[in-house]
Amino acid sequence: MDKQLMDKGLKTRREVLGDEYVDRATKNVDDFNKPFQELVSEYCWGVCWTDETLTRRERSILNLGMLAALGKGEEFELHLRAAVRNGLSKEEIRAVMMQIAVYCGIPVGVDCFRIAKRVFGDNKS
Amino acid sequence: MDKQLMDKGLKTRREVLGDEYVDRATKNVDDFNKPFQELVSEYCWGVCWTDETLTRRERSILNLGMLAALGKGEEFELHLRAAVRNGLSKEEIRAVMMQIAVYCGIPVGVDCFRIAKRVFGDNKS
Amino acid sequence: MDKQLMDKGLKTRREVLGDEYVDRATKNVDDFNKPFQELVSEYCWGVCWTDETLTRRERSILNLGMLAALGKGEEFELHLRAAVRNGLSKEEIRAVMMQIAVYCGIPVGVDCFRIAKRVFGDNKS
Amino acid sequence: MDKQLMDKGLKTRREVLGDEYVDRATKNVDDFNKPFQELVSEYCWGVCWTDETLTRRERSILNLGMLAALGKGEEFELHLRAAVRNGLSKEEIRAVMMQIAVYCGIPVGVDCFRIAKRVFGDNKS
Amino acid sequence: MDKQLMDKGLKTRREVLGDEYVDRATKNVDDFNKPFQELVSEYCWGVCWTDETLTRRERSILNLGMLAALGKGEEFELHLRAAVRNGLSKEEIRAVMMQIAVYCGIPVGVDCFRIAKRVFGDNKS
Amino acid sequence: MDKQLMDKGLKTRREVLGDEYVDRATKNVDDFNKPFQELVSEYCWGVCWTDETLTRRERSILNLGMLAALGKGEEFELHLRAAVRNGLSKEEIRAVMMQIAVYCGIPVGVDCFRIAKRVFGDNKS
Repeated sequence: MDKQLMDKGLKTRREVLGDEYVDRATKNVDDFNKPFQELVSEYCWGVCWTDETLTRRERSILNLGMLAALGKGEEFELHLRAAVRNGLSKEEIRAVMMQIAVYCGIPVGVDCFRIAKRVFGDNKS
Repeated sequence: MDKQLMDKGLKTRREVLGDEYVDRATKNVDDFNKPFQELVSEYCWGVCWTDETLTRRERSILNLGMLAALGKGEEFELHLRAAVRNGLSKEEIRAVMMQIAVYCGIPVGVDCFRIAKRVFGDNKS
Repeated sequence: MDKQLMDKGLKTRREVLGDEYVDRATKNVDDFNKPFQELVSEYCWGVCWTDETLTRRERSILNLGMLAALGKGEEFELHLRAAVRNGLSKEEIRAVMMQIAVYCGIPVGVDCFRIAKRVFGDNKS
Repeated sequence: MDKQLMDKGLKTRREVLGDEYVDRATKNVDDFNKPFQELVSEYCWGVCWTDETLTRRERSILNLGMLAALGKGEEFELHLRAAVRNGLSKEEIRAVMMQIAVYCGIPVGVDCFRIAKRVFGDNKS
Repeated sequence: MDKQLMDKGLKTRREVLGDEYVDRATKNVDDFNKPFQELVSEYCWGVCWTDETLTRRERSILNLGMLAALGKGEEFELHLRAAVRNGLSKEEIRAVMMQIAVYCGIPVGVDCFRIAKRVFGDNKS
Repeated sequence: MDKQLMDKGLKTRREVLGDEYVDRATKNVDDFNKPFQELVSEYCWGVCWTDETLTRRERSILNLGMLAALGKGEEFELHLRAAVRNGLSKEEIRAVMMQIAVYCGIPVGVDCFRIAKRVFGDNKS
């Protein structure tokens, strides 16, 4: 593992996913899953999110598309909240999800809009 | 079909995919596939790409993520060329594909970089 | 959107999915998801289900196969209930799911039979 | 292996996929792939296609949906030809593929219509 | 169905998945799902798991990889418990899941480690 | 990047995939894909294959299962050749592929056996 990249990654992760989520995730680390957590920190947050070639807003859009296509609902929800944090408006998120529905099929769109209802509901937005 | 939306869609499609490709696709239309071509024009190009809530650059990033995750190599290549047309630099496209590799797995990344080699090779860029 | 196609679609949707489900879905519509609901009405229910080239029974069989292969459990359950409404017997639905298990793999079959147990259980059939 | 089921399966396979294809496949059997060929004969052709709970026409529709959703282009082409043999008209096959495009996403539809162009082209139909 | 293969399969299944699970599954069999249960017994447990060309340990590793890639969480959990029964240590299971994360993408790895936390938590191991 | 891990990874990669393949891949590296090649070296070959918690034989079995489930034919072929290099006999590879066919569905099995025919054909084995 590249310690420096991992540390930068952890900082970015906190900014994108929020303190509450990362505090919970950190408490959840144990001897067993530690190597995986380090992989995530270095790989997702160091290699990808810390690199500034793309804006965080663009990385959010990319992640929503991939996570929807892969059928990963829990991760999609997490990154929908991150997308709001990275500055996407509700209208922009809807436009992302309309494009997802057309390209990945209506049932994938149904899942996305169901998750968005939950996210925007509890955000009172 | 919504004729007006479809016509706007066709115009957008030509701008994004280029005249050469669309001319070829148009010549390929026959009685059998016409209803599908109209579906594509209205939904992909009318509902999604013509809507300006997202920039074309952002829609390109989203499409690359979905098409890679869905394993649709030919469509990925088409939209890689469109991404260049929509203003993404080679460095930005590489950043998109690095994130794809991390989130969709290394074998998906291998496919993307193989396709990019072909696209950038024949672009002399 | 093509208003006429959408209206026909809504009528078909009600016949296939049942009043109870559609009433609930309709109440669930808000400003945010309205464009998506219209897409579904026009696209799934107008373009596909309202077209009589295939019988509803045949469209149910097709949908069960796709939704199982795509791993969309909630939509599969919805369309299993629709399949019963469209006239498929329990024996015919089982035959569909046996073929799904062979072509999509045993774990997909396990999911389908688990859902069918729930559906046929609460139907007292 | 259940010899009787396998023999019935082989007969059905020949009727559905045609002599030419099956002759070629049979010549292709060697010591290495024989157990797999027997698995296919018993499960696909014995358990599924020989069972008359569904018509062959219905099984063709189901298979087209699954194979498209799974992204298996070569098998999709094989079963498109089988669908014609099982009595589906070009218009009915188009209706199947329109529904596939809506439920599995436009890029899957693009693949299906590309394959259909090839199949119907060389059938002079 | 091949009765002899099915009986051997059932015995293997009991050894790999444990009496508690199989007793529950057996009680769950009814007229409707019986043909599918027989398919599973013959196909998964007879054809695959009873064949000694691979060790059970190797078959567990293979199944974990496939079930993760296919996104089948419940089956993954079942086979994670089976992997422990077949002799894989926690460290070996972690190594399997690290490789899954790299090849299938981080979100698949997140799912696997979440499931493992539950399995190893209630095993007090 | 962790230089030491990457160097160990490159050595392992050469042992598993063979000099001929790696020489070709190395010649293929350019400014554009270099960061991705380094990612592959560190994560696939450093983090996974160099770690001795699992044997190379076990890692080959795991990879075949994942690559088949993900539908990555070219990578599957590469790792089928690697599996032979890591000591799996033809009979063992067949057993792996029979299990893949049952768990991922017959069409995935068809792809695997087609690739194996090519690999074992040109190996004269």
